[in-house]
Parts: sequence; C-alpha cells; structure tokens
Amino acid sequence: METFEAIAQRKSIRSYTGAPVEKADLEKIVAAGNAAPCAGQISIAVITDTEYLAEIDEATFAFMQNSGVEFLVKRSSTPGYRPLYGAPALVVISSDPERGTANVAAAAATMILAATDLGLGSCYVGSPTRVLQAGEALAERLNLPAGFTPLAGVLLGTTDDPARFSRDRAPADNVTFIG
Amino acid sequence: METFEAIAQRKSIRSYTGAPVEKADLEKIVAAGNAAPCAGQISIAVITDTEYLAEIDEATFAFMQNSGVEFLVKRSSTPGYRPLYGAPALVVISSDPERGTANVAAAAATMILAATDLGLGSCYVGSPTRVLQAGEALAERLNLPAGFTPLAGVLLGTTDDPARFSRDRAPADNVTFIG
Repeated sequence: METFEAIAQRKSIRSYTGAPVEKADLEKIVAAGNAAPCAGQISIAVITDTEYLAEIDEATFAFMQNSGVEFLVKRSSTPGYRPLYGAPALVVISSDPERGTANVAAAAATMILAATDLGLGSCYVGSPTRVLQAGEALAERLNLPAGFTPLAGVLLGTTDDPARFSRDRAPADNVTFIG
Repeated sequence: METFEAIAQRKSIRSYTGAPVEKADLEKIVAAGNAAPCAGQISIAVITDTEYLAEIDEATFAFMQNSGVEFLVKRSSTPGYRPLYGAPALVVISSDPERGTANVAAAAATMILAATDLGLGSCYVGSPTRVLQAGEALAERLNLPAGFTPLAGVLLGTTDDPARFSRDRAPADNVTFIG
C-alpha cells in the first residue's frame, strides 16, 4: 500500500473480530515501531495471551468506572463496552516516564501505519497503560527494564467495522504557514 | 512509495541543501500530521521564512551552548554546527503542555513518513521547541491558541546526504512477545 493511502485510511478502530493476528505481521509492526524516530530507549511488549488480555481489559474497565473522570465513566458505561474492544493483540510501549512520551508515541504512530498497510485495524489507547502503571502485579509480566513505565498502548486486530475506511474529517483550521 | 519502504528509509537527516520545499508538499505533509491519531487538539505552524528560521537557529544555538547539558554543549560546539542544519522548513507542533506530548509526537512521526515518501529529508528536533517555549517574543509569530505550547519540531528539506537511505540498526533486543 502507498504511504499516503495508509495515512489516509488510518482510523481508530473500536470493534475487532477477535481473530488472532499472524506472528509475522506482529513482527513487521514491531520492527516499524523500532524504525521510528527515537531519542532514547523504548521497550515493546506484544500481548496476545488471552488470559492476560482479559485481566488488563477487566482492570481497565474498573479503572474507568472508578476514575471520577466523567468522560471515562460515561464511555465505560455504554452497554457491552470493553476497553480493549475484543482486540486479540495489545502492544505496550514503555520508556522512561520523564522523557519517553514522545518516543513511545512516535513508535506507536509508526506501528499504526504499518498495521493499516497490512489491512489490520488499530487503536492508540491510553487507559490500559494507566492501569499497567498503577498495578505492579499486572505489569510484572511485561518484564520491563528498571525505570521504565508503560506509556502507550496500541490495539491490533482484524475488523469488520464497515466504516473502517471511512474518515470524515472537518477541514483543518489548525495550520499556519509562516513564510 | 510503499508504506514499509518509507518506514525503512526514514532517517534523521542533519544536512540539507537549503532548496525550498514546494508548498504542495508542505500541505501534504501537514495533512498527514492531521490524520495521525490524536486525543485532543494540536496546532501546526510551518515556518519557511528565512529570517525567522535564522532567529530560531541562532537562539537555539545559544540555548545549547548555555544549557549546562554536556551533550548539547558538545554537539553545538562541533565546527560549523547549526541547530536547524540549514533546513528550509521547520514545522512546529503545539498543544496543551500537560497532555499534548503524545499527540504532537504522533503527528510528527506521521509527517516524517509523509516527507520520506515525498523524497524529503526530515529530522525530529527538540531544542528549537525548547527555545520557542522560553522565548515569548520569538514564539509570538506562531500565533498559538491560548494554553498551547510548542512541543515538537520537524525539519524538512531536500538533502544530498549520501547516507540518507542507509540505516544500520542493531538487531532489536527490546521486544517481548507474551502469548
């Protein structure tokens, strides 16, 4: 797929079939993340273990319900809502919490374009990483280097969302050309 | 260009010919940034004004020299060093400083892949945004929304760096598959 096609088709997908993602695709996506601009070190965990995903899903749901943040309470109260949307894979990108946010986000955005190119749905998620930050027992299996914290999550999976290629964006009014 | 080719060719370029980037290319790159995953608002300024670029370049050089950070002092003391490397365009991406870092970084990474696809060199830079954060007079021309701060910079331009497609990366040892 052309780069600009992947960029245009990229959309946050919140409905997955649950079918497993092929290991070869996960490896390509992770390699893409490692090819992103990065001023520092990141660590990438690719979670496909269904029990671990269910634990993270449940803990994230509880976190959202008890967050006191109106948006999170409301979203998680939608009937049938699950924070991981049934995705069969969650990539957790970790780094130094003081200076690593830009690095993990650049890696996540690059992985997401790689996934789009491969025909996979994806979604940049924050709440599961909040839960992994807070829950030592839950984060233990990530086996992170000392001083690293989960800072970004990317859901991956096949989707049959009929709107997956449909992106209606308002014309941008946030751009200034100075020249 | 194929998405994975752009991802593989992406490299931080620190040498530019200085030839102007076509407006149409800048517009495509900015649109790519606006198509990146984003949970919030960002603002994008595309600086091609040579005087403004020279001011930012000079202020960034002074910032690096006086930073007290060994890495920045050393890098900026390299003979002939200029912080903007002679790039004819600097994109400054701004947002809410409390929560916007991931949003600007995702936009920057996506713009960088768009630039790579278009055959342009690019570099994700931090120091010029530090200078714009600190210098109200210097940042005034960005005309930012209230509460927004410059958080990421992307240099763009043609390059004749002979190593621009050559990327030697050590095999990744930062990936864990849990499944």
